[in-house]
Amino acid sequence: MLNVKIIIRTIGFLLIGEGLFMLLPLIVASIYNDGDSMAFLYSLLITIAAGAISIASTFKAKKNIGRREGYVIVGSVWICFSLFGSLPYLFSNSIPDYTNAFFETMSGFTTTGSSILNNIEELPHGIIFWRSLTQWLGGMGIVVLSLAVLPAFGIGGMSLFAAESPGIAPDKVNPKIKDTAKILWNIYLMFTAAETILLMFGGMDFFDAINHSFTTMATGGYSTKQASIAHWDSAYIHYIVIFFMIMAGTNFSLSFFALTGKPRKMFKNEEYKFYLIFIGVATAILSIGLFITSNLGIERSFRDALFQTVSIITTTGYATSDYILWTPFLTAIILMLFFIGGSTGSTGGGIKVMRIVLLIKNTYYELRRLIHPNAIIPVRFNKKSVNQQIITNVLAFFFLYITVFFISTLLFMMFVDDFETAFGAVATSLGNIGPGLGSVGPSSSFAHIPDGGKWFLTFLMLLGRLELFTIIVLFSPSFWRR
Amino acid sequence: MLNVKIIIRTIGFLLIGEGLFMLLPLIVASIYNDGDSMAFLYSLLITIAAGAISIASTFKAKKNIGRREGYVIVGSVWICFSLFGSLPYLFSNSIPDYTNAFFETMSGFTTTGSSILNNIEELPHGIIFWRSLTQWLGGMGIVVLSLAVLPAFGIGGMSLFAAESPGIAPDKVNPKIKDTAKILWNIYLMFTAAETILLMFGGMDFFDAINHSFTTMATGGYSTKQASIAHWDSAYIHYIVIFFMIMAGTNFSLSFFALTGKPRKMFKNEEYKFYLIFIGVATAILSIGLFITSNLGIERSFRDALFQTVSIITTTGYATSDYILWTPFLTAIILMLFFIGGSTGSTGGGIKVMRIVLLIKNTYYELRRLIHPNAIIPVRFNKKSVNQQIITNVLAFFFLYITVFFISTLLFMMFVDDFETAFGAVATSLGNIGPGLGSVGPSSSFAHIPDGGKWFLTFLMLLGRLELFTIIVLFSPSFWRR
Repeated sequence: MLNVKIIIRTIGFLLIGEGLFMLLPLIVASIYNDGDSMAFLYSLLITIAAGAISIASTFKAKKNIGRREGYVIVGSVWICFSLFGSLPYLFSNSIPDYTNAFFETMSGFTTTGSSILNNIEELPHGIIFWRSLTQWLGGMGIVVLSLAVLPAFGIGGMSLFAAESPGIAPDKVNPKIKDTAKILWNIYLMFTAAETILLMFGGMDFFDAINHSFTTMATGGYSTKQASIAHWDSAYIHYIVIFFMIMAGTNFSLSFFALTGKPRKMFKNEEYKFYLIFIGVATAILSIGLFITSNLGIERSFRDALFQTVSIITTTGYATSDYILWTPFLTAIILMLFFIGGSTGSTGGGIKVMRIVLLIKNTYYELRRLIHPNAIIPVRFNKKSVNQQIITNVLAFFFLYITVFFISTLLFMMFVDDFETAFGAVATSLGNIGPGLGSVGPSSSFAHIPDGGKWFLTFLMLLGRLELFTIIVLFSPSFWRR
Repeated sequence: MLNVKIIIRTIGFLLIGEGLFMLLPLIVASIYNDGDSMAFLYSLLITIAAGAISIASTFKAKKNIGRREGYVIVGSVWICFSLFGSLPYLFSNSIPDYTNAFFETMSGFTTTGSSILNNIEELPHGIIFWRSLTQWLGGMGIVVLSLAVLPAFGIGGMSLFAAESPGIAPDKVNPKIKDTAKILWNIYLMFTAAETILLMFGGMDFFDAINHSFTTMATGGYSTKQASIAHWDSAYIHYIVIFFMIMAGTNFSLSFFALTGKPRKMFKNEEYKFYLIFIGVATAILSIGLFITSNLGIERSFRDALFQTVSIITTTGYATSDYILWTPFLTAIILMLFFIGGSTGSTGGGIKVMRIVLLIKNTYYELRRLIHPNAIIPVRFNKKSVNQQIITNVLAFFFLYITVFFISTLLFMMFVDDFETAFGAVATSLGNIGPGLGSVGPSSSFAHIPDGGKWFLTFLMLLGRLELFTIIVLFSPSFWRR
């Protein structure tokens, strides 16, 4: 029997946490006095009350959380957080429509960054701050989940990498979830603070700087400006954002080692190496392409190329340039990056660099096996041979990702008429990126997508954020059979 | 050391075979007397001479053909056949441009069916016949290769299926290539004859009937008419063609069992079951969709739906209706079918039904493994558990297919400006289907694609026809290292 009580109880505690975090936008709202303070007060009280009721009603719950309970909790948390997290938008009348409010919130907590807003600058400061904060919390959540919680529970595809990843916990058999989470939290906070300060040096005011630091570190991509980062015509600001996007898309365990005096561990890591190689190659091609096809000059071509490459590969989604206006070939390069994603153990979404590298390596080894059919040639990663189970899981993940992508694009054609928009909207939602193609490109919003389509995309965001299996397993009959 | 002499010698023998087959269009040309007889005579003599020189110059070749020689021969045969097979087009001035002539020939031998012609009806009969014959020979070639030759050599991904496939040869350790090839040849010939006769009953003349039988059995899709099968407004002809397309997309070993009194073996086969299920599901959705969105009536909606489903899934590419003019959602369904393909051991291209089924099953089993991580759950197919090596190979194939597809689409954007055309042209070439999307849809030709793009597509046709690994292995450094 599934221990439903402990599930409700755990989510109750987490909701109280969400409610408490609403204090921050409440403070912001009080300072700026834009008239949205009461919206946060009501939302905060409702969320905490819901959490308290959940806890109170499950007082006698047994403490055992097994693998199955783990899956249900993880799957539900993002949904519950989005249900309550959309309240401030509704109560402040910033987004009066529930579908839109839920879309904006789920896009926040999953660190996707797709938006239905066309008037960001007109919103009250508290609401803009809450919008950025949902991404920051979502980003932190996924890092803690993939580096601390899931490995402890042995859950899902992500935990399979625990053995391959440079784990922080010294004792792998019994990793101390709280200690690991604390370390990660500190790194996350430090990076956010550092970026805020550095952006302020570039002339951003404190409000814009902290909001962008929140959404950079989460690889979320929400901006305080309708024009995104392009609003600031400053090379300094662009390069600062690029640097922190790269850090956010890096496995946080590696940052931990780099910060504690072991930077070599970082550059010896194969996933990190390939992550930088992918960025380097795409930037090189795009720089040359932009330089030839535009009159931007060398530095600006390079900067736009690097910025968009990093923004898309880390699944942040900020814009300094609208890639759908580039030569089709260059747009297609960006499109390829939609399917790579950040590193494992980072806030980035997508398929993830480690998986892509394992897939490429496995294909190469498969070719060698065809030439020498009797030789046993295991795939090697970080100088160790990789367990066959991981390879099969990665390959199955890739098939599932592509299948979900194709079928979803097909289904999404029921909501929009052009193939490019469907393709882009599905790819960007599943990869937690933000902007898409066609009518949902970097300069447009998702406002015009029909309601059904918006709900569909929020589901894809969740699916992508929790790396498919974690959600799809809930739909499998053998999960519910005992 | 690679035994180069035996490679040249083997190809020499095969070229003489190709030259002898040119006698058939020579006879057709002589009967119709359209002025193309000499073109065939010259082509025939040149091809046979080239073959004879290859054989004569390698008189002292050692007889040993190993795995590596096998790969080189298989890879070269399609190229050499296309080089010489394009001569009749050039000599008859039917296709004066070499790029176009090579494209049309490679599209023939790989049973793709993409065409650069906009004036098929104006061509001499001999040329039309040769065009169909290239497909027929290519289709036969791939069946013999995948069911008789490759399993004997233990070559490539295709041969991995030998153990899973219902092989014809009684002794698996030492399959008698010639005997198996002979049986397949007889079945192929029988089906072709039967379709020709049945099409003539429907009012087609002998010339049209035999040409279409050639290209149906090869799942090639070349027609004698610019309008393809839509030229005949006859339900009878449409259903006959549908039936034989289905047979051509079925593993020929199963047809062998069905014809020798063991039809049960056919319906017990899981690949065949799923093949029919895929056709059934797609037809059902498309029938309803076409009925609602058009005024075609029930029967015609069903017939068009079934015809286009079977035409695309078997990778034939005939048209009775232009699917790019359908509602986008219905076009997207057809697009999904681009990535399935026929059965293993059939003349169909694409990823193949068996691989798709194994991929789906593996994903399902992976979900079960996530719930019960300590259980060993092998994937089962045809009631036997499938070797892990096959699963890894299939998964690697899928990754390679999708990667080649994406990178090729990207590269093809250098030749065309719209994403849809690039997407469709690459998908149709790699899947050996024929028509694509956008400006290379069922009602258009490939004539307007720039030369570089045409050469690129012929390479993709070859890559798809030989199931990627067989060609890509030739580019692997470890293949050439000893």
